[in-house]
Amino acid sequence: MRAVALGGGRGLHVTLTALRRLTDDVTAVVTVADDGGSSGRLRRELGLLPPGDLRKAMVALAAPEAALWSELFQHRFGGTGALAGHAIGNLVLAGLFERLGDPVAVLAEAGRLLGVRGRVLPMCTEPLQIEADVTGLDDDEDVSRRIRGQVAVATTPGRVQRIRLFGPGGPGTVPKGCPEAVDAVLGADVVLLGPGSWFTSVLPHLLVPELHDALVRTAARKVVVLNLVPQPGETAGFSPELHLDVLRGHAPDLRVDAVVADTGAVPVPDRLVRAAAALGATAHLAAVGVDGAPDRHDPVALAAAIDRALHRPPDPPGEPSSRTLHTAVEIRGGEEPWR
Amino acid sequence: MRAVALGGGRGLHVTLTALRRLTDDVTAVVTVADDGGSSGRLRRELGLLPPGDLRKAMVALAAPEAALWSELFQHRFGGTGALAGHAIGNLVLAGLFERLGDPVAVLAEAGRLLGVRGRVLPMCTEPLQIEADVTGLDDDEDVSRRIRGQVAVATTPGRVQRIRLFGPGGPGTVPKGCPEAVDAVLGADVVLLGPGSWFTSVLPHLLVPELHDALVRTAARKVVVLNLVPQPGETAGFSPELHLDVLRGHAPDLRVDAVVADTGAVPVPDRLVRAAAALGATAHLAAVGVDGAPDRHDPVALAAAIDRALHRPPDPPGEPSSRTLHTAVEIRGGEEPWR
Repeated sequence: MRAVALGGGRGLHVTLTALRRLTDDVTAVVTVADDGGSSGRLRRELGLLPPGDLRKAMVALAAPEAALWSELFQHRFGGTGALAGHAIGNLVLAGLFERLGDPVAVLAEAGRLLGVRGRVLPMCTEPLQIEADVTGLDDDEDVSRRIRGQVAVATTPGRVQRIRLFGPGGPGTVPKGCPEAVDAVLGADVVLLGPGSWFTSVLPHLLVPELHDALVRTAARKVVVLNLVPQPGETAGFSPELHLDVLRGHAPDLRVDAVVADTGAVPVPDRLVRAAAALGATAHLAAVGVDGAPDRHDPVALAAAIDRALHRPPDPPGEPSSRTLHTAVEIRGGEEPWR
Repeated sequence: MRAVALGGGRGLHVTLTALRRLTDDVTAVVTVADDGGSSGRLRRELGLLPPGDLRKAMVALAAPEAALWSELFQHRFGGTGALAGHAIGNLVLAGLFERLGDPVAVLAEAGRLLGVRGRVLPMCTEPLQIEADVTGLDDDEDVSRRIRGQVAVATTPGRVQRIRLFGPGGPGTVPKGCPEAVDAVLGADVVLLGPGSWFTSVLPHLLVPELHDALVRTAARKVVVLNLVPQPGETAGFSPELHLDVLRGHAPDLRVDAVVADTGAVPVPDRLVRAAAALGATAHLAAVGVDGAPDRHDPVALAAAIDRALHRPPDPPGEPSSRTLHTAVEIRGGEEPWR
């Protein structure tokens, strides 16, 4: 099974960890719009792709025998000086970017060091910028303001309505998809979208025209994995179904096959079933959170849930909604009666 | 042949490159007193061993197949920001120091990455400080002042008379030799000292008590390789024989077997022969500089000269001086009549 996971940050890490349980052929397609932390400093200082999300994806796919190098990649400098907080892997990737130029070649070389099974690709080979229309920042709640930059969007106290993505030329320049990432989506058997920061890690992929078109055209089964909890800032107060509506708003042509959500994170399953159906998808509820850590997916449970979603038989004609809801109830009990 | 090279910086790089032509069993024992450049910044900011000289030694012993990683280790960040000038290899070694603690383990791990044939060891596992007595800094030329720090000593406009070496506790704390480095010297067949910054890269090894004692006790043949030109700052105006006298002044108990010097860098061969004899050594003159670059050793020629010095038969009784001088003249002509 050729699997492609789209995303960034911790959300992508968990998807990749889960997918590795299902197949060895995993490709990560990683957002490159980060402008915060170590990545943001490297991007501003050296004009390179922000490496942090790429680094995390590599580590998720790294071989256990390369544990030392994975740990080194994740290690952040201590102290109180100019290096404090820089992840070593970010510095290695940045050095390789300077040295080799082509990010795809850089990730292949670093992948050999870490014994990466599968492949890590940037969604674009140039750093991108996110801009959002945000309401709720003024006395008049309906006034929309433009907020720019991943950190600013992810932490806005307002309500994000829509995002746009720019190339390095700034507003108006269309981001160009990484050809290898486009090919990976076109050649995949399954494509995963989410979980993660919805506006800043998940939706950006849909705004790269070549990637969007590949997602629409691919014969792969497309699975959306929803977040466990709304994210303070960009999705504060968002219901699970609103996540799907927002996705549909940003990519009206995209059809999805399955939506996987945590049972406990969906207060009104029927609403989710309807929002999924609007995307062409069936909803799959399962307990996929870590006990005691309500914001963290359990990769083992998530892998099982994805596997079930991929192998679920088609709904009986005429009753998709009740059938899916029934499934949800069954999953709640831990059984798999439809197999 | 088990070879050990003591030194630091560019001088050690050339010795290691030369030794690799003679044997696969090469151990570098590297000074750790640097306080300048990228190394100095890392040392001050993170309290770690200065990695620069260690990095250069590793690259000298790296496998050709690991060329990309060697180049990355040597690559220095561009830009105009906080990272500018940091060598990536320094950052990787610093990260490993933070992660693993033990520098010997760190160098073994990094050695695997670079395919190092042989071994790189620090002379001490804690950062050291150099202090020098320097004259010529005042109106009264004989007044001696203490100058502290490798960069300060290496660039002083005065005349360095003597150096001392401190542990991280500052003046009075005795540096402790790295046990693996001590063992390497004791188990060696040949030990090389120099070329390099005489006071700041070559002599420091003699001021680490355990290393000094190992150098005195080892059955290895000891070869001193002299610099091609005096170094502005620490050895401005020093004759080749003064380099040897200074070495003897810092380690009176040390006996040396051979001194290798460039023919063109020794204006009065007989003086060098006498200074070498005072150390117990014979002098070997050969053309070991790069054509057109009077301050750079040619590793191929240096390897040949070291090989000749090691295999030269003992002097006939009663006429060591004339014999050695004769040799020098022969070498000048490119012949090897004593073989």
